Amino acid sequence: MSEHPLDPIFHPRAIALVGVPEKLDGRGADFFLALLDQGFHERKPIYVVHPRATEIRGIKAYPTLLDCPEPVDHVISLIPRHLVATLVDQCVEKRVRSLHFFTAGFSESGEEGMAAAERELAERARAGGVRVLGPNCMGLYVPDERISFSLGFPTDAGNVMMISQSGANAGGVVSGLAPRGLRFSKVVSFGNGSDIDAAELFEYASSDADTEVVLAYIEGVPDGRRFLEAVRRCARVKPTIILKGGFTAAGARAASSHTGSLAGSAAVFEAMCRQTGALRVDSLDEMFDMAVAVTTRMRAVRGRRAVLTGGGGGFSVLSADVIARADLEMPDLPIETQERLREWVPVAGNSVHNPIDAGFVGDRHGVADEVTAVAAEAPGYDFVIASRGDFRMSPPRPGDEPSDPQTRAERDERRRERALESARTLAAIQERTGRPVIAVRREYAPEPAGDFHVEAQRLGLAAFFSVPAAAHTVDTLLRWRERREDLPEIL
Amino acid sequence: MSEHPLDPIFHPRAIALVGVPEKLDGRGADFFLALLDQGFHERKPIYVVHPRATEIRGIKAYPTLLDCPEPVDHVISLIPRHLVATLVDQCVEKRVRSLHFFTAGFSESGEEGMAAAERELAERARAGGVRVLGPNCMGLYVPDERISFSLGFPTDAGNVMMISQSGANAGGVVSGLAPRGLRFSKVVSFGNGSDIDAAELFEYASSDADTEVVLAYIEGVPDGRRFLEAVRRCARVKPTIILKGGFTAAGARAASSHTGSLAGSAAVFEAMCRQTGALRVDSLDEMFDMAVAVTTRMRAVRGRRAVLTGGGGGFSVLSADVIARADLEMPDLPIETQERLREWVPVAGNSVHNPIDAGFVGDRHGVADEVTAVAAEAPGYDFVIASRGDFRMSPPRPGDEPSDPQTRAERDERRRERALESARTLAAIQERTGRPVIAVRREYAPEPAGDFHVEAQRLGLAAFFSVPAAAHTVDTLLRWRERREDLPEIL
Repeated sequence: MSEHPLDPIFHPRAIALVGVPEKLDGRGADFFLALLDQGFHERKPIYVVHPRATEIRGIKAYPTLLDCPEPVDHVISLIPRHLVATLVDQCVEKRVRSLHFFTAGFSESGEEGMAAAERELAERARAGGVRVLGPNCMGLYVPDERISFSLGFPTDAGNVMMISQSGANAGGVVSGLAPRGLRFSKVVSFGNGSDIDAAELFEYASSDADTEVVLAYIEGVPDGRRFLEAVRRCARVKPTIILKGGFTAAGARAASSHTGSLAGSAAVFEAMCRQTGALRVDSLDEMFDMAVAVTTRMRAVRGRRAVLTGGGGGFSVLSADVIARADLEMPDLPIETQERLREWVPVAGNSVHNPIDAGFVGDRHGVADEVTAVAAEAPGYDFVIASRGDFRMSPPRPGDEPSDPQTRAERDERRRERALESARTLAAIQERTGRPVIAVRREYAPEPAGDFHVEAQRLGLAAFFSVPAAAHTVDTLLRWRERREDLPEIL
Repeated sequence: MSEHPLDPIFHPRAIALVGVPEKLDGRGADFFLALLDQGFHERKPIYVVHPRATEIRGIKAYPTLLDCPEPVDHVISLIPRHLVATLVDQCVEKRVRSLHFFTAGFSESGEEGMAAAERELAERARAGGVRVLGPNCMGLYVPDERISFSLGFPTDAGNVMMISQSGANAGGVVSGLAPRGLRFSKVVSFGNGSDIDAAELFEYASSDADTEVVLAYIEGVPDGRRFLEAVRRCARVKPTIILKGGFTAAGARAASSHTGSLAGSAAVFEAMCRQTGALRVDSLDEMFDMAVAVTTRMRAVRGRRAVLTGGGGGFSVLSADVIARADLEMPDLPIETQERLREWVPVAGNSVHNPIDAGFVGDRHGVADEVTAVAAEAPGYDFVIASRGDFRMSPPRPGDEPSDPQTRAERDERRRERALESARTLAAIQERTGRPVIAVRREYAPEPAGDFHVEAQRLGLAAFFSVPAAAHTVDTLLRWRERREDLPEIL
C-alpha cells in the first residue's frame, strides 16, 4: 500500500509547541504536559517556543520557531489569533509539514471577517507546503508515536481510528472506550477543518494499515459529493460508524458556534450513510456499543434467536420484554436442555425456561457459569446474553466500606480478581461452544466493571452495561449487515 | 384517618422466622441477618424457630412456633413447601397477624396441583385470621420499624412506597434510588399475591400518611376492575408510577414462571393508567428518574423552554439535539444575558448562546456555577439544565490511582467534599432565582456521583446521570400533568 499524503503528519520527527504558558497554568499547558505524559520526548525532540523562558519543565525553550533545531515536522499553536499570521510564515520558512491550531476565534465566531481570515490562513499555509489542522481543535492522539492532546490517555495503541470535528467528543470517545478495552490507531480532532477535513481523513482511514474500525463525529459537511465518496471508500472495506451532530435547530446553532458548521438535514445524512454502507448512530453511547460489537466475536452473530441467562425473576421478565422489543426472538429451551439445567437450578424461585432465571441457587459456587455453558450448547440459538451482577439486592452503603484503607485496598483487589475470572470463564464458554456470548455487567456491580470489560474485550467477548444496550446493539448490527449485502463482508 | 386493615402488618410487636439455616448459609439466612442488620431485635423481639438449635447468632431458638412467647405478629416462612400446612395451622392457633412465605414452588411452577395448593393455603390462613404475603416473595422492608428483607438497605425512612410483584425489582428500586437520596416508607414484595395483592396495597398506599409517592412493579392483574379502582384512588391523591412486566410473549412466559401471572396486553394496561392518572413507565431507570422528578423542585417545571449550561462544544451540540428531540425548546439567550456571560466566558472555544458552552475558561474557579447563575436569571426559560462533569477528556487510568491507600482515601474525601459543594451551589441558585435547576452528573465523573446526587436530593435539586435522561424526564412529567388536568394538582 503506497503512503497516503496525510501519513507524514502522524509521524513527525520533532514537535514544537508555540505559546506554552511558562507557569503551565491555563488550557494550553495540557498539550505540552500530555506529550511529556506519553513520553514523546524520550524518543524524539520536543521544542518549546517562548519569548522569554529558557526552559519549561526541563525542555529547552527557543525565542522563535526559526531558532529551533531542524527538522520540526509538527507545530502546535497555542497563541492568540492575532499572532498566527507570523507563525504561518515561519512554518513555511522552516519547512514544517503540519500546523495544528488549538487557537480559536475564527469562522466559528460567526463574523464574516474571521471566516475570511481562516480561509486566507489555510491557503497561505498550504501554498507554502504546510498542512493545517483546525483551527479550533485538539489535534492528534497517536499512541504509537506517543502523541496525545490530553493527559491520561492510554499509551498503548489499537485498531480504532476516530475522526472528530469536536475535541470534547474525540476525548469522550477515548474516555468511553478505553475502560471497555478498546485502543486507538489515531484520533484526529480537526475542528473548523479549514484544510484537512473529514473527507480527507476518511480517505486516509480507508487505506491506513493500522486502522480496522473507523468512528467519526461530524457537524457540517461543506462538500457533500467529496465527503460521500470518501465515506463510501472507507465503509466499503472497514466498519465505519458516524455520529452526526446539529440535526435540530438548537443543535445546528450550537454547531455553528462550535465549528462554524452548517449542519444540514438528518434525512439527507441518513440516506448518505445507507448509500455508502456506513452506520449512523444517535449517540456516543451507541457508538461505543457498536465499536465493541465489531471488535469482538459478536461480529459472528448471524440471527435473531437469543437465550438469556441471569438471575432475578423481575429482571428476567423485563429483560425478555426488552429483548423482544428489539425485534429479537426468545424461543423456549428444548426439554433436554431444561433437564440439564435442573441439575444446577432448583425449582423454587427459579426458571429453566428462556429467559433462564437462576437467582436462587443458595451458596453453590459457579452456578451462573454452568447455566451459561449449558445454554450456549442448546440447539437453535444464534447467541447467548449472559447477565452478571445485574440482579443486585443491596446498594453500597457508607457503613459497608471498610474504614481501614489497607483493608479496602485488599478487598478491591479481590473483587478485581473475581471480575477478571468471570470474564475469562465466559470467554472460555464462547471459545468452546463456538456460540457468540454477549456479557452484561452493570457499572454498579460490586466488582469494578471496568476490569471485567477490559478483560472481556481482550478475549474477544462483547460486554455491555445493560440488557437493553446489548439487545439494541444486536438488532443494529443485524440490520446494518442486511443493508450491506452487496458490499464486501466485513461485519 | 382511620387505620387501614393492612396497617398492623407493617407494625408487628414481634417477628418469628421459621427455617433459618443454623449455619446461616443459604438464601433464607439473609432474612434473619437483615433484621439484625437493621437492629429490629434492639427494639422488639425476634424469635427463631428451629427443630434442634437453641440459639442462632445470639437469638434464642424455639422448637416450634407454638413454643415462642406471645405475641408473635409476623411470621417469615423459609421452609420448603411440603412443610407449610402445619405452619399455617400453628399461625392460626398463635393468633399471628401476617405470614410471609419466602417459600416458593406454588402456582408459578405451572402445575395445576400447586396452584390449587396455593389457593387452599391462603384460604385456610385467611379463615383463621392470618393474612398471607406471597408465596414466593421477599416480603417487607419497613425502615421505620427496622424490618428489611436484605442486608445493606438504608435504616432511615422516607416518603416513597414500592409495591412489587418481584423481589429482585423491589430490591432493585431500593438499590437504584438509595444512591440518589430517596428513602422509603414501605417496600412490599408480594410475589404470587395469593391473599394480599396489588389492589389492596394501592388502597393502603393511598391512605398511608407516611407515603407521598407510590411506585409499583406489576406482572399480572387477576381482578382488573378492583385493580383499576385501587390505582384510581391512589393516583388521584399521590404521584403513582407503574412498571408493568410481561408485555411480550417471552416476557409473559417469564412472568408466568416467575409469579404465575397472566400478563395481559400493553394497550389495555396503558389505557388503564391513562384513565386513572397513574404514569406507566417502560423501565426501572425511567421509574427512578420520575421518582426524582416528583420529589424535588423539578415538580415546579411548567413549560418546555430549556437553557443548558455545560462545557465542550460537541457535548453542547449533541445535548441540544437530544433536548429538542424530547420536544423541548431551546430559545436563544437575550443579548443582555449573552453580555453578562461574556464577563465569565472567553470568546475562543466557547459559546454564550443557548446551549451555553463554557468549556475553555482556563483555571478560573467557579465559572460553571457563575454561568449557571446567570442562565437561571435569564428571562423566558422554564428551567435550567446544568451539566457538571459530563465533559471529561481523560479516562481514569490505573497509573493515576495513588498507590498508597491513605493518600487515595484522602483524595477520595476531597473529591467527595467538592461533589457536595457543587450540589449545594446549584441548589442555592435554584433557591435564590426560584427557577428549577436540573443537575446532570455522570456516574464516571471523578468525584463520586452518589454523594452529589444524595446531597442534591436532600436540597430539593433534581439530579440525573445524563442530559438525555433529564430531557426525557421533563417531557414525561409535562405530558403526565397535562393528562391529569381534571384531577387534583399533585405534580
